[in-house]
Amino acid sequence: MRGNSFGKMFSLTSFGESHGPAMGVVLDGVPSGLKFSLDDLQSELDRRAPGKIAGTTSRIENDVAEILSGIFEGQTLGTPIAVIIRNTNQKSSDYDKIKNDHRPGHADRTVEMKYGIRDHRGGGRASGRETVARVVAGYFAGLIIPKVEVKAFVSCLGPFEFKVIPKDIYENFAPYSFPDTSKNEEIKNYLEDLQKNGESIGGRVRIVVDHCPVGLGEPAFDKLKADFAKALLSIGAVVSFSYGLGEEMAVTLGSEVSKTLSSFGGMEGGISNGDRMLMTITFKPTSTVGEKAKEGRHDPCIIPRAIPVVEAMVKVVLADHYLRQNAYSIK
Amino acid sequence: MRGNSFGKMFSLTSFGESHGPAMGVVLDGVPSGLKFSLDDLQSELDRRAPGKIAGTTSRIENDVAEILSGIFEGQTLGTPIAVIIRNTNQKSSDYDKIKNDHRPGHADRTVEMKYGIRDHRGGGRASGRETVARVVAGYFAGLIIPKVEVKAFVSCLGPFEFKVIPKDIYENFAPYSFPDTSKNEEIKNYLEDLQKNGESIGGRVRIVVDHCPVGLGEPAFDKLKADFAKALLSIGAVVSFSYGLGEEMAVTLGSEVSKTLSSFGGMEGGISNGDRMLMTITFKPTSTVGEKAKEGRHDPCIIPRAIPVVEAMVKVVLADHYLRQNAYSIK
Amino acid sequence: MRGNSFGKMFSLTSFGESHGPAMGVVLDGVPSGLKFSLDDLQSELDRRAPGKIAGTTSRIENDVAEILSGIFEGQTLGTPIAVIIRNTNQKSSDYDKIKNDHRPGHADRTVEMKYGIRDHRGGGRASGRETVARVVAGYFAGLIIPKVEVKAFVSCLGPFEFKVIPKDIYENFAPYSFPDTSKNEEIKNYLEDLQKNGESIGGRVRIVVDHCPVGLGEPAFDKLKADFAKALLSIGAVVSFSYGLGEEMAVTLGSEVSKTLSSFGGMEGGISNGDRMLMTITFKPTSTVGEKAKEGRHDPCIIPRAIPVVEAMVKVVLADHYLRQNAYSIK
Amino acid sequence: MRGNSFGKMFSLTSFGESHGPAMGVVLDGVPSGLKFSLDDLQSELDRRAPGKIAGTTSRIENDVAEILSGIFEGQTLGTPIAVIIRNTNQKSSDYDKIKNDHRPGHADRTVEMKYGIRDHRGGGRASGRETVARVVAGYFAGLIIPKVEVKAFVSCLGPFEFKVIPKDIYENFAPYSFPDTSKNEEIKNYLEDLQKNGESIGGRVRIVVDHCPVGLGEPAFDKLKADFAKALLSIGAVVSFSYGLGEEMAVTLGSEVSKTLSSFGGMEGGISNGDRMLMTITFKPTSTVGEKAKEGRHDPCIIPRAIPVVEAMVKVVLADHYLRQNAYSIK
Repeated sequence: MRGNSFGKMFSLTSFGESHGPAMGVVLDGVPSGLKFSLDDLQSELDRRAPGKIAGTTSRIENDVAEILSGIFEGQTLGTPIAVIIRNTNQKSSDYDKIKNDHRPGHADRTVEMKYGIRDHRGGGRASGRETVARVVAGYFAGLIIPKVEVKAFVSCLGPFEFKVIPKDIYENFAPYSFPDTSKNEEIKNYLEDLQKNGESIGGRVRIVVDHCPVGLGEPAFDKLKADFAKALLSIGAVVSFSYGLGEEMAVTLGSEVSKTLSSFGGMEGGISNGDRMLMTITFKPTSTVGEKAKEGRHDPCIIPRAIPVVEAMVKVVLADHYLRQNAYSIK
Repeated sequence: MRGNSFGKMFSLTSFGESHGPAMGVVLDGVPSGLKFSLDDLQSELDRRAPGKIAGTTSRIENDVAEILSGIFEGQTLGTPIAVIIRNTNQKSSDYDKIKNDHRPGHADRTVEMKYGIRDHRGGGRASGRETVARVVAGYFAGLIIPKVEVKAFVSCLGPFEFKVIPKDIYENFAPYSFPDTSKNEEIKNYLEDLQKNGESIGGRVRIVVDHCPVGLGEPAFDKLKADFAKALLSIGAVVSFSYGLGEEMAVTLGSEVSKTLSSFGGMEGGISNGDRMLMTITFKPTSTVGEKAKEGRHDPCIIPRAIPVVEAMVKVVLADHYLRQNAYSIK
Repeated sequence: MRGNSFGKMFSLTSFGESHGPAMGVVLDGVPSGLKFSLDDLQSELDRRAPGKIAGTTSRIENDVAEILSGIFEGQTLGTPIAVIIRNTNQKSSDYDKIKNDHRPGHADRTVEMKYGIRDHRGGGRASGRETVARVVAGYFAGLIIPKVEVKAFVSCLGPFEFKVIPKDIYENFAPYSFPDTSKNEEIKNYLEDLQKNGESIGGRVRIVVDHCPVGLGEPAFDKLKADFAKALLSIGAVVSFSYGLGEEMAVTLGSEVSKTLSSFGGMEGGISNGDRMLMTITFKPTSTVGEKAKEGRHDPCIIPRAIPVVEAMVKVVLADHYLRQNAYSIK
Repeated sequence: MRGNSFGKMFSLTSFGESHGPAMGVVLDGVPSGLKFSLDDLQSELDRRAPGKIAGTTSRIENDVAEILSGIFEGQTLGTPIAVIIRNTNQKSSDYDKIKNDHRPGHADRTVEMKYGIRDHRGGGRASGRETVARVVAGYFAGLIIPKVEVKAFVSCLGPFEFKVIPKDIYENFAPYSFPDTSKNEEIKNYLEDLQKNGESIGGRVRIVVDHCPVGLGEPAFDKLKADFAKALLSIGAVVSFSYGLGEEMAVTLGSEVSKTLSSFGGMEGGISNGDRMLMTITFKPTSTVGEKAKEGRHDPCIIPRAIPVVEAMVKVVLADHYLRQNAYSIK
């Protein structure tokens, strides 16, 4: 009830502080008999890892997944799957000077007000490191809905903008997940300049879901759009969610909107209609700015690293709703 | 698990189809000994009722709250509070012609695909009538957090826009909830024209929360922003949610954002910081357009009527988190 | 979270005080397209009704089920099903004298201590009337698992005891649910004597489940036996639960126990194994004794009336676990 | 939803198979600022460990608790607390011969039927090793309700019986938890004989709770007695639960029962009344009998080792209900 679990039939329970011994996650509700590959899971974690993208943080975090339960001879057992990732790189001394330093927009101050105690060595639970748990969950969610394709890409990174859905949506837009890869050099320079100046920037991510089964999502409170919104807003830096036409809907006539189903982003009445889904979220700039940001342990822009986290949360929602809908298919 | 309940320590379970015998709600987790006023509850329902706002639907719905349990001698008992509102105005014959008529963007088609059966006489569970349950819940949520003020207003209604937070935020902006009431005549004419043309329009609603206690919201998945997003996106026509600077965050430098706490909309790390909260949501235009819309039983713009629903959902989230936080305050 | 809901995929939320306007229940998670019969539902309620069994309470309660939602043209819609039963017979004046009268073993005193307020006109939520909600839920649970047969009977009623499982288990043992119906006259005289003397008695109920699918029940905390125990102990007067050999297991050697599968009451490791299930529960005597009991509004023995409630709770657990298991059967 | 979590405001999520890398538990809802002692936690685990009690299994399991999160500088952070215990002693080869060997009354067969796959090296999730998670949870539950005293003792171990509540209830009755410690030598001989003969025995455990606050437990489904029953029946070998007078209630007149409050075991209407609580549970004999049992890796009687598990589950229920009741105490 402290909010560290998400999902109903497929649920993840996340734990770990950034500077404690380990991050981890327990996945309950993974059906038995699904084929598991540690390599595939590790690949997902590697996509999120820092230090690999120019202009993002230079810390090397060794995010090595260790399976503690729920897997036997390469298959899921149907029992809870626990995965931990050791925190190997925490140099606590680096953080002592920020003990009483509360970054605006970050949880430092509110966590202290809420609990009366805080692991001041880092972000604690509010650290971006918590998202490794989500990436692990996304991998297992993917095993439940193997035919559904979920792809996120950066549509806006400060001054760089990509306004349409790329045709080659399933291409690899590494390292920035920006579809116009001819801009990669420019983006790199831009991010390096930000870092030199102790500055940070946010951006926007669009999410495309193809081949989602019809009928997922529950009327009233657990509409698919509502659960997507919650899942994505539960990511630290996300400040907005929209689907389909989004904010433009406010100024578009009903007749216009109704002309094309894609206006509705693949959901009608909060239930998937089988069409391509489309969602957009906004990330705020990293909270660490100024002198501390210049030290180079913080990303001036976290969005490229957040892409696998975003995809994971969308998969988690879909896998959960898939099992829920399946429960009621009795004959 | 069919998604008709919301909230954990303070929960509402909603039921009823628009053309069945009654709509209703069961509220569990209302503390005992709170003073109850049927008049106050009825006033909240009346704010939502159609037929009272020029340019909105002319159907008269008699939304009379009937208390079935949980109240005794003007006080809450601490037991579940059940409230029903009879559906008195359903003329099923009017709806027969739309039996196989699936409005784009509405749940008609997806509900049928999901369940294989649908109460075709109206929107069923997907009808806007379902929101009476939420308004009732909002009233009781307000009893739990009496000092918190929640105010929603229309910031955009098609071409009409109000870009700032009005100073006199707690004024009554009836009937359109648009703060520049000098525009009321213009809005009335605009809405009447829409209706004549079988057209509809959406808009934007901003939500202000004052005097929220510090420390509400749970790190990881039940961040306050995440629960607000879910609560608001669970309202039928809502297509976007943002808080603080919202989508602008994508193109604002970190140093700018950090200059003023209001950028963060009263939440840091997903936890309330005691500042004024600010959220914005977008409503899509009503799904009924064309000839059916001209018949006059449908609102060309539902936003003014949605205001009490929006306020109710925000209060529900706050009351739930208030009780959750209270649970852990042991000494 | 106030404990008025039970079940996960198939859940019931119960409401109502014995002397308020109505009792009721909301059922969420009933699959769509199941055939509904109001007559069948009403029959279940009539089995529980007082005033029909000699030696049980003479109050006539008109427990008429009113469907508020979730049913359309004789079928379930897949939406929440709300059913209310009006409280027509409450003569509050009769109860005024017991305002400060706390019956030992009854909730009167503890409810007052817990909430600081109580509907003193009757048992409030703690009244046996609350169980009408469970009987309604049991009816719908039965629609989900139509092939599973659940039968409860009285194995002990004070001095009357029936030690084996009757061969003709699915016979009607009306009115006392005691399999040796040749004792009915004796039981009637015994109960009438108890009432004359302001006395009450408890008893034991055995539950037989046939044709339960294999594989229901979840390892760890939601073992089938654990959920049965919770469901049955949640009935007001129940003070013990056992399954299979029960308390005898304490003094039986392992080799003996293992000789016959029926020792385990149809469950191994908390999971149904397809064999006949067998459970036993104990009811304490009615709390009202002495002068008040002589007035004749209270049953000297509630067990015969509790039989449909017991069967209902067992069905609720089975329907819930059936849907849960079904959720994970993906191909 | 796979049943590996228990509790609402204070919840434990358990994971691990007996022959996988580790057992573990995540505790969510532990308030912040509570003093933590690794030594105290380890002591609780040691009470459960095998190999220390003559006549119980001779395997040495090194149950060393490793804290992964939620503790900082000797205090709880209010974040989820993850604890793992490595499985160091699993010699898989020993178990190969029992791959297709299904012990009656054990989960071997039903787990295989349910999931279609099983970790045949041992009991998997159904192993008694799973209970280490519960003992860890019990330790933290105790931090939440430090004034409540929970004591379990063996009231029946095959032919040995102790019929009353001992006056010196908080004494240490090691090693068998049987209050008449003058029988220890006899019990030892009895258990050794059982083992020689490949035989096993069950027993009964009584649980005493003192100083429980008034008002815990929720009417309707989450009555304290119902949650105790579920918690205790979720322990593998437990086959019955009763409280207060228990099964005797069936044959005791209402006037007798009402004479003394202790008849009701400290609960009225499912709510704690402040009196001493009294519950009794039955354990079935260990499932492993015959030649395999003679090999000496299995306990002929698990009850002495189960005592800390029983106490833990009772504390978990009480801590959860304590926080729930606290949530609703608003002023």
